[in-house]
Amino acid sequence: MRGIPFAKGHGTENDFVVVPDPDGELDLGARLVTALCDRRAGVGGDGVLRVVRTVHVPEVADQAGAAEWCMDYRNADGSVAQMCGNGVRVFARYLVDAGLAGPGDLAVATRGGTKRVRFEDDGTVTVDMGAAELPERLARVEVSAAGRRWPALGVLMPNPHAVAQVEDLAHAGALREAPVVGPEGSYPEGVNVEFVVDRGPAHVALRVHERGVGETRSCGTGAAAVLVAARRRAGLGPQDDERRSWRIDVPGGRLQGTERADGHVDLRGPAVLVARGELDPEWVAAHR
Amino acid sequence: MRGIPFAKGHGTENDFVVVPDPDGELDLGARLVTALCDRRAGVGGDGVLRVVRTVHVPEVADQAGAAEWCMDYRNADGSVAQMCGNGVRVFARYLVDAGLAGPGDLAVATRGGTKRVRFEDDGTVTVDMGAAELPERLARVEVSAAGRRWPALGVLMPNPHAVAQVEDLAHAGALREAPVVGPEGSYPEGVNVEFVVDRGPAHVALRVHERGVGETRSCGTGAAAVLVAARRRAGLGPQDDERRSWRIDVPGGRLQGTERADGHVDLRGPAVLVARGELDPEWVAAHR
Repeated sequence: MRGIPFAKGHGTENDFVVVPDPDGELDLGARLVTALCDRRAGVGGDGVLRVVRTVHVPEVADQAGAAEWCMDYRNADGSVAQMCGNGVRVFARYLVDAGLAGPGDLAVATRGGTKRVRFEDDGTVTVDMGAAELPERLARVEVSAAGRRWPALGVLMPNPHAVAQVEDLAHAGALREAPVVGPEGSYPEGVNVEFVVDRGPAHVALRVHERGVGETRSCGTGAAAVLVAARRRAGLGPQDDERRSWRIDVPGGRLQGTERADGHVDLRGPAVLVARGELDPEWVAAHR
Repeated sequence: MRGIPFAKGHGTENDFVVVPDPDGELDLGARLVTALCDRRAGVGGDGVLRVVRTVHVPEVADQAGAAEWCMDYRNADGSVAQMCGNGVRVFARYLVDAGLAGPGDLAVATRGGTKRVRFEDDGTVTVDMGAAELPERLARVEVSAAGRRWPALGVLMPNPHAVAQVEDLAHAGALREAPVVGPEGSYPEGVNVEFVVDRGPAHVALRVHERGVGETRSCGTGAAAVLVAARRRAGLGPQDDERRSWRIDVPGGRLQGTERADGHVDLRGPAVLVARGELDPEWVAAHR
């Protein structure tokens, strides 16, 4: 009996189980997704990327004209997610690797809209992360962690972020608990918090605490939010050509963010495939 | 180009990357082992089990008459290890699954000697863990954690353990740091610490802190040590037929330990194969 095929890959150590299902025949329930992501009893990953033709996914089928392939992203807890900036690089890598798409410019359908992706010959992938929103009501929020407090800038990518410039990334402490963001009620749906230090001209480093997850090795939308916050702090808007591209060091590697004149953020980074194979049919049957 | 084949499996959530290398042709350096065990940038596991014919491993070649296959076990940090009680179950499962050995009784060569293993039809595997030693000098040690202190019994399997009976497993706290074991100098090479509660007749549950690793989901030699300590606490020695078999709940599942009349401990538990496949050749080349 053949098992379900899979691959494992990561982008700046945000890691994924890739499950090809071109014709949308797989019943990928929350229980199986959770089991796949279990780092000891399963394959292990931050999420699952199902590779499926867009026409077979009713929620995004209207994108089928623009994008043949849909990244059906699931969080490690089995829930459905809109998008994942690091995941879409790994997804693109898988498509090219499996011969499902050529290198160069690709379009990927997601629940967060069609994403434009460029796959380069050296294996790095650039993703258009969309435009940031900086609502006035979040212009002066405050982040507290490890007994310290910093002013922060709210950025929507469109998921919610609070970006705090700090002296030293160690000042945020062990981040075992979520940082507190005020004033109360600023982020009714929770918030991802980035701590940022300057490393040089157009070069920052960050740590990130993701809502509902904890501290992670990388966060694509967080890196994009940090780029926009860094440029605004330098007095630069989307229309300013100065220092458009920044190096953004995350705990799991290095990203490059570029703010374009139309306000969209291009995020460029590595996409690594570690292994490919088949899930054991008996294991799958036990976790349906 | 074909990649290096691998499988991933676990025994009570102690998980392993299995690398078949029947003819001993693979250069499995510490760097590659560490990369394989990396849970985000690699496959992920507590260790690597290389499956190699015993004749090809000089250190254990004298066991080749007794055991065709050698479990060449490596810790996640790349170091060589003698044995792993949960690993040998997964190893046996792999052998049977790959058609390299029949079910039933097997012998496995390890750096800790030839291990006798029984593979049952339901997929559970029983391993002869050897005999425990209870040196008099370790009969009254003491374990401290989370501001509490308990008397403990020292057991060598032959790796060193200190087994403390507690009222509640939560009393050991978060176990982010190693428990302190006294008197000082009792365990010059470090110690694995087990916290044990009674769950019913011949039924205990444990948490374990492994030296150099931290709290883990399961520890085979720890479970064996706990069985022997529990029987001694009940006034039973190897010669006593009463309550030979105990159920031992570990955080990652359920084991059954049996003390035989010759003092050897048989440990029975599940062995699960999750997936099999090939490592990406480019990834391997980058981590040699």
